[in-house]
Amino acid sequence: MDIEISEVGPRDGLQSINRIMATADKKRWIGALAAAGLREIEVGSFVPAKVLPQLADTAEVVAFARTIPGLTVAVLVPNLRGAQAAVAAGAHKLTIPLSVSETHSLKNLRRTHQQVLEEVRGIRALLNELPPQQRPSFEGSLSTCFGCTLEGPVAEDAVLRLGESLMEAGCDEIGLSDTTGYGNPLQVRRMIRRIWESLGRETLHGIHLHNTRGQGLANALAAIEEGITTVDASMGGIGGCPFAPGASGNIVTEDLAFLLEAMGYRTGVDFERLMAAREILAAALPGEPLYGFVPDAGLPKGFQRAASIQPEIA
Amino acid sequence: MDIEISEVGPRDGLQSINRIMATADKKRWIGALAAAGLREIEVGSFVPAKVLPQLADTAEVVAFARTIPGLTVAVLVPNLRGAQAAVAAGAHKLTIPLSVSETHSLKNLRRTHQQVLEEVRGIRALLNELPPQQRPSFEGSLSTCFGCTLEGPVAEDAVLRLGESLMEAGCDEIGLSDTTGYGNPLQVRRMIRRIWESLGRETLHGIHLHNTRGQGLANALAAIEEGITTVDASMGGIGGCPFAPGASGNIVTEDLAFLLEAMGYRTGVDFERLMAAREILAAALPGEPLYGFVPDAGLPKGFQRAASIQPEIA
Repeated sequence: MDIEISEVGPRDGLQSINRIMATADKKRWIGALAAAGLREIEVGSFVPAKVLPQLADTAEVVAFARTIPGLTVAVLVPNLRGAQAAVAAGAHKLTIPLSVSETHSLKNLRRTHQQVLEEVRGIRALLNELPPQQRPSFEGSLSTCFGCTLEGPVAEDAVLRLGESLMEAGCDEIGLSDTTGYGNPLQVRRMIRRIWESLGRETLHGIHLHNTRGQGLANALAAIEEGITTVDASMGGIGGCPFAPGASGNIVTEDLAFLLEAMGYRTGVDFERLMAAREILAAALPGEPLYGFVPDAGLPKGFQRAASIQPEIA
Repeated sequence: MDIEISEVGPRDGLQSINRIMATADKKRWIGALAAAGLREIEVGSFVPAKVLPQLADTAEVVAFARTIPGLTVAVLVPNLRGAQAAVAAGAHKLTIPLSVSETHSLKNLRRTHQQVLEEVRGIRALLNELPPQQRPSFEGSLSTCFGCTLEGPVAEDAVLRLGESLMEAGCDEIGLSDTTGYGNPLQVRRMIRRIWESLGRETLHGIHLHNTRGQGLANALAAIEEGITTVDASMGGIGGCPFAPGASGNIVTEDLAFLLEAMGYRTGVDFERLMAAREILAAALPGEPLYGFVPDAGLPKGFQRAASIQPEIA
């Protein structure tokens, strides 16, 4: 697979919707997403049920998702306690968000940068106690790294510094997260290059983009052309951050998959099955707006993946 | 100005809407678009009123638009007769579409490739009779150049061949037009490079994109990074081609302007005035869906244009 689309709808999508999707529906939807060829799905978040009742069944959903062969079962953890629950449930990948905007960090996780880094160290210690073959991978996600709805512009040097701190504190890798849909392709290119220059290429493989200002796929294109290999997206573009006002809408899995496949990247996605998964989502959340252009317009007549990327272009 | 946004809403947008905007509203809207900093506006099309009654007042709209200082008044002409009317009205720029898909050409202009090229030669002769300072510029637009809803995939060699034919027949330049929203960034990059290699860089400056599959801004980014300097867009994303089923929606002026300004390109656009123009459009077409993310989300907090493009990135 050339580019991994990491489906975050069951986590980022559902947490931003007031209603609660039934566990059985989540399982059906996640099964259909995997059947459509998505190999990594963020299925939930180990946060207190009081904070996000929509994700209170994450342990059960993880247990189910682990039964799907070949699927990487990812979860979000805000702290050590969440990581303990994630490990107990058997998640393959843990992601902890660290907001570069400390104001957002305090709103989102109720923690300063130093407090989050302390959690990271605790999680690293927890993971190191596990036998290597049972040890989940552990990513630190640099939220609001292209700007914050509360603080405004974010300094690139702060992103670099916190990225380095996350790696030092024990993350296996870091990710870039445009939580607020503020990023532009130039920023995306520059940030990726700076991190790779400073921290090494193996520290960063993934990006998480929101389409708040319609720039999501342009940003994804820039990231992929730079060499990023994992892009988060959510089916139907559901999702957002309830603690960053106006920051709604992940980039749409369906449209991202079309962008990539049309350019000749292999994503593993089968469009017909992807549309079937979308129908399951629509049926589980009747009346909820689902976004995306490809689902409406369909694939181009005679659509075929570009056989391969032209070396001089890619 | 680094990148010219050529506003095509009054032509491509209005022709795809069943209702007819009052001439006075068109003038108010075009005035507001120009006041927002847009320096080129395609204000109409010289086609028989029977075919597109929405644009029957194009001569009057051209006469009005010519009174706006510094504005390039562009129109579409399907043939010599249209060009005669455009010249009489005083348009600064004529664009004739030539569909690379001959099936689409027959549906759209009711003419074969050779018949369109014959019209181009007639228009060149007409323009050559004018004193140079009154002579409008003359572009040939390669419609459906990234694929056709009727024929499916379109051969790049055919695009090159017809581009050369348009130049030989007398166009000042050619443009690329993704009439159907089929294009992807790889195709866009490759097509621009091939045309520049074969026909010279001065033959191609502009691209016309539709957002049918949500790929519009990603394609615009690719085009701009290649060196394209004029990008068509329509306010609110209205527009499409009534003769290419499913080919709806130009890229959105508001979102394109944000993409460009955020990256540090100068477009001349003032966002506050652009929103004022959008309100005029909304008032003139009550109930008509207007698209765009930036109008809903607003500019990022503390938004400032990147001071300049980083040379190593651009």
